[in-house]
Amino acid sequence: MLANLNAVLLDQQEIAEISQQLNTKSLMGLSLAKMISETQAYMAKPIEVPGHGEAGGYEHNRHKQNYQYINQAGRLFLITGEEQYAQYTADILTEYADKYLGFGFHIQRNTNPPGRLFHQILNEHVWLLYSSLGYSCIKHWLNEEQVKHIESQLFQPMLDMFTDKYGFDFDRIHNHGLWAVAAVGICGLAIGKPEYVEMSVHGLKGDDVTGGFLAQISQLFAPSGYYMEGPYYHRYAIRPLCLFAEVLHRHRPELDIFNYKDQVIGKTIKAMLATAYPNGVFPALNDASLTMDIKDQGVVVAVSLAYKHYGHDEKLLGMAKIQQQVWLHGCGAALSKAYQDSTNTALPHWPSVELNEGPNGDRGAQGFVRMQSKDGDVSQLVMNYGQHGMGHGHFDTLGISFFNRGQEVLKEYGFGRWVNVEPKFGGRYLDENKSYARQTVAHNAVAVDQACQNNFDVELADSKHGIPHFFESSNQDLQAVSAFAEEFYPGVDQQRSVVLINDDALEAPLLLDVFRLSSDTEHSYDYALQYQGQIVRCTSDYQTHKELAPMGDNFGYQHLWNEAQGKASENNLVSWLQGNSYYSWISASEANDELFFTRVGANDPEFNLRSETSFILRRQAKSTVFANVLETHGYFNEAVEASTNARGKVNQVTVVVSNDIGSVIEVKGEGIDFTVMLSNQRDVSAETQHTIEHNQQTYCWQGSLALEKNRG
Amino acid sequence: MLANLNAVLLDQQEIAEISQQLNTKSLMGLSLAKMISETQAYMAKPIEVPGHGEAGGYEHNRHKQNYQYINQAGRLFLITGEEQYAQYTADILTEYADKYLGFGFHIQRNTNPPGRLFHQILNEHVWLLYSSLGYSCIKHWLNEEQVKHIESQLFQPMLDMFTDKYGFDFDRIHNHGLWAVAAVGICGLAIGKPEYVEMSVHGLKGDDVTGGFLAQISQLFAPSGYYMEGPYYHRYAIRPLCLFAEVLHRHRPELDIFNYKDQVIGKTIKAMLATAYPNGVFPALNDASLTMDIKDQGVVVAVSLAYKHYGHDEKLLGMAKIQQQVWLHGCGAALSKAYQDSTNTALPHWPSVELNEGPNGDRGAQGFVRMQSKDGDVSQLVMNYGQHGMGHGHFDTLGISFFNRGQEVLKEYGFGRWVNVEPKFGGRYLDENKSYARQTVAHNAVAVDQACQNNFDVELADSKHGIPHFFESSNQDLQAVSAFAEEFYPGVDQQRSVVLINDDALEAPLLLDVFRLSSDTEHSYDYALQYQGQIVRCTSDYQTHKELAPMGDNFGYQHLWNEAQGKASENNLVSWLQGNSYYSWISASEANDELFFTRVGANDPEFNLRSETSFILRRQAKSTVFANVLETHGYFNEAVEASTNARGKVNQVTVVVSNDIGSVIEVKGEGIDFTVMLSNQRDVSAETQHTIEHNQQTYCWQGSLALEKNRG
Repeated sequence: MLANLNAVLLDQQEIAEISQQLNTKSLMGLSLAKMISETQAYMAKPIEVPGHGEAGGYEHNRHKQNYQYINQAGRLFLITGEEQYAQYTADILTEYADKYLGFGFHIQRNTNPPGRLFHQILNEHVWLLYSSLGYSCIKHWLNEEQVKHIESQLFQPMLDMFTDKYGFDFDRIHNHGLWAVAAVGICGLAIGKPEYVEMSVHGLKGDDVTGGFLAQISQLFAPSGYYMEGPYYHRYAIRPLCLFAEVLHRHRPELDIFNYKDQVIGKTIKAMLATAYPNGVFPALNDASLTMDIKDQGVVVAVSLAYKHYGHDEKLLGMAKIQQQVWLHGCGAALSKAYQDSTNTALPHWPSVELNEGPNGDRGAQGFVRMQSKDGDVSQLVMNYGQHGMGHGHFDTLGISFFNRGQEVLKEYGFGRWVNVEPKFGGRYLDENKSYARQTVAHNAVAVDQACQNNFDVELADSKHGIPHFFESSNQDLQAVSAFAEEFYPGVDQQRSVVLINDDALEAPLLLDVFRLSSDTEHSYDYALQYQGQIVRCTSDYQTHKELAPMGDNFGYQHLWNEAQGKASENNLVSWLQGNSYYSWISASEANDELFFTRVGANDPEFNLRSETSFILRRQAKSTVFANVLETHGYFNEAVEASTNARGKVNQVTVVVSNDIGSVIEVKGEGIDFTVMLSNQRDVSAETQHTIEHNQQTYCWQGSLALEKNRG
Repeated sequence: MLANLNAVLLDQQEIAEISQQLNTKSLMGLSLAKMISETQAYMAKPIEVPGHGEAGGYEHNRHKQNYQYINQAGRLFLITGEEQYAQYTADILTEYADKYLGFGFHIQRNTNPPGRLFHQILNEHVWLLYSSLGYSCIKHWLNEEQVKHIESQLFQPMLDMFTDKYGFDFDRIHNHGLWAVAAVGICGLAIGKPEYVEMSVHGLKGDDVTGGFLAQISQLFAPSGYYMEGPYYHRYAIRPLCLFAEVLHRHRPELDIFNYKDQVIGKTIKAMLATAYPNGVFPALNDASLTMDIKDQGVVVAVSLAYKHYGHDEKLLGMAKIQQQVWLHGCGAALSKAYQDSTNTALPHWPSVELNEGPNGDRGAQGFVRMQSKDGDVSQLVMNYGQHGMGHGHFDTLGISFFNRGQEVLKEYGFGRWVNVEPKFGGRYLDENKSYARQTVAHNAVAVDQACQNNFDVELADSKHGIPHFFESSNQDLQAVSAFAEEFYPGVDQQRSVVLINDDALEAPLLLDVFRLSSDTEHSYDYALQYQGQIVRCTSDYQTHKELAPMGDNFGYQHLWNEAQGKASENNLVSWLQGNSYYSWISASEANDELFFTRVGANDPEFNLRSETSFILRRQAKSTVFANVLETHGYFNEAVEASTNARGKVNQVTVVVSNDIGSVIEVKGEGIDFTVMLSNQRDVSAETQHTIEHNQQTYCWQGSLALEKNRG
């Protein structure tokens, strides 16, 4: 019946399989029902192909919705067999073909060249990709004249623009480049011009090095699969990557794309998924939103594709459980069936993983440490000791974030941007992204001399990277990561070691953070933690200020109100309540340490920043160690007026000794007496022996770290 | 088999009915499953009857849990027939009986006398009530010696304490008093001493006036059923009220308690439920938490009881849908069955209602205005023009709050208290409750001369009340409430009229707020709105301050940071983003009006206050009118990067004329041209004619208000 079916991404068998799920409660059935109801709602409105508008404005959004529904209606025509969908797809594409060449080019707004529909061709690439997919589903249903009109007045001019007028931008090893080649390649298939597939796969020069899909997937990811701009941009790049890979799998089988370069596609999908917090939200590494999660369309496609092409993995079923949808495609049908067949799929518990960075995996890494408490809750620590991340990089090497009990506890601020909120500078990056969000002090890190790592110089920062020291994840109740950052501040070397410890006396894994700074000259060190919630108690003799002034005049400090300050107490404690949980930070503070409570919002004339809080422990020293624990404890529920364990157990943290061999830290409290020994020796291995004599006591251990639990 | 069953609240038939729901998915089945799993988890721990502890501390919580599980285990024994529950109930009661008289009395901490288990007898009443209920379920299973031990060493001494030692506190017409009489009466039945039921029903003097349950329910509620301390305290009082009423229904049928005083019990339950926001959360009128909702145990009991004794009501099924549980009792069984039998129960949509205040219903009222938008979302306006509310009263007569799209938009701050958070002053009311939370400026109201209504004098405030003017709820697309407050500030009379308007040009009901102030002398008027979220744009030429100072030094102003200020623009607009929705406030501002942006947190040395925001429009005038609209528009979802209609439609609000006859307000915008005429005449009726000549135009209308929609 559909002998002349031209659909780029669906074959007869897949269509039949998917159709069978109509009106069922399978994930595919749910995905179909949602797509049908949304598409019907959109089709009920008059077709509108507007002219130019602002980024994030009405016209911009309308073009975005249009390509989405061209794509969906086209697919629904094949799956339901209802001609109303084909008619709609044809009508809207015809209106675009009528108007497209009549639209002039937008005025250029950023480094991305302008299109005829959008202010930047990135959006126009996305438009072309999805519209081509939709078109390919109905082409066999159109008459010759319609085909000619749409292809000659719309698709061909777009292809010309992308590969000719903006040919200089087509060969780009960049996440935007993936959209370009995927769009051009898919459109080439849709309109029957295989030469565009060639260009897209091998680049304009055909050398597989300077451009094209193969060059991009070879060069964009580290051997670990990590993408240097972080998960937020990774999930954006993964969408065209997966769509085009699936296209090549069926139309260029000789490439064996899913095994290409040691299965780079499968690896990068898994690496991306392995970064997510237990609730499916991605940590906001570098410029990123705080809410981007695995329900993103690209991740939905990636999970379905990985399941189909890289074999069964319980964790992928767990991801699908969070997503509650699958890709409306043969790959999604396979995942939906597997999910249906599996009983009692658990939420995914990814193992701890260190993802190396750089083309050869030798430019640092990102550490993801996960530990489960007795009640099953997963604590996740993220530590950044990899590359800077180019223009979207934050100056936060050795920065950490921490998640448990369903919330981010040591928070990332994310980007300074209100995506697509048109009155907020068109939804683009705001000045405050530079002046605050990307600065060191906006992170959970140490800012030296109230300045920023690498002096906020992107080029300088890109030339450096963190140095992994050790990553221990074999013991489920004792895990750790350690890394160095050298000369990120002139004359200062940094080492951060973070340990997660499970113990019967504790409700949740204890986070021990040991931050060493080494310098020959005296500096001012600001150890900052970004918390959220209500301060419950603090042992410092702090004073809230009667009037508020900014903490400084540069490097992000100009945006921090100094709410309170005071001399830190011995074993300084700050407890706060966030959501339903209490947290206590206990620090091995020193005699002249000063504690500050800050709030974001100073020098923010347009109210662009969010009002977030941190506390900062400031110390004047040459070389020093900040040793701190974060204890998770108790429960609060205002609605039922329940509160338990508002006070934690730990009350003492001591740096016994710290030198180039190692650091010995004692942590004490009710039923708790730990001695933690951490290696500071470069090139430490599992066999390395450490011996430190201190106060007539000898501390000996083998390997990266050791924990002694001394029971009274 | 259970011929000698003594259970105060369950009979054989009810037990059989409830047992049938074990392992089903009915609401009763779900409630049972939850109770069984929680009770089993608690029973797995060793029994512990601790000594004295701090309010909200470990011991306090343990005693609370103990009575909860005595009550639950007792009931589960009857429902499941499993002796483990009876054994547990007996063991824990025996341990209390062993220890109780050995505990001395606590040190008195507040006006409430101290008990032996708790720092205030209120908690000990609750303990007695629930423990008596649990005991009554297992008494027939105990041997004589056990009965004697528990009754003579525990229950009788408690009864003596409450009716003798603290007899002066037993006859109290107060929400605490309900707990006292319910506890004593129920214990009396459980141990077979009917004289205590008599005292509880009729008071120690037996006069039904000075004390006892009948006096309390006669005097505590207004004819409308409203409880003057507000829904937060109402839902706390409703629990003993319902429990004891159900007890009297079966043990003192001659009282015909559910018809007592024109069905005051049914009326007050419905009045309480009618205050709730569409999501089931209670508006925080007076001292209240922001999260108390209809899932509270007392409300669960009340909804089940109302369904059983006051007949079928779809809205009660809707409430049960939100609650997802029923009272584990015959009443709950009835509700569960009805819910099961009903198909497609909708969330409850309570009609607009004005609840009068005072024993005779003539001391003002509380207005609850609800309007549905085209998409079904319910907007709810709450306006307070009733009584002050005694010690828990806030000084916010004519204050409003507003809810839609699942969130409170014009916010109440609620109380200054971290309930049961022991390190926060034992979870008790904080100083900031007085210095900020109860002050006028903390509300959505007008503060005059930077001071507080009635000079923050509770006695003075209790002597006054708001004066209802009109309440119009018959037209689903045009509803309004208006009221006066006279001399709440010396020499200043206030009138506030709030209108909700549905229109095809608008996504959601438009809120029009017309606040008139009349005085012979000049004052400084601060019209304040408490918003939450991110400022998106503002037409005022404001400046953010380089350093922050408090807005004042008294009446709550000392806690407000002055973040920004500037001359208001004509038709001053402030737009903000809260959650997934945009809101725009447009004001008929005058030439010298000044706009302030504030943030709570100044002079808060213990971080007791939450960091919340408001804007204030300040005007110097004798008599004046603040006319403002709040438009709800657009959609934002950061996770999927969607934003639509970030700009609203309304752009102009004009006070055409306002005098003692009426106010004429024009509202204009894209596709919007409304003229709203509001009566300012006292004793307005549906027949009252109004005529105002202004600028050679005549405005005529009949009744409280009129709306003309002028279409271009």
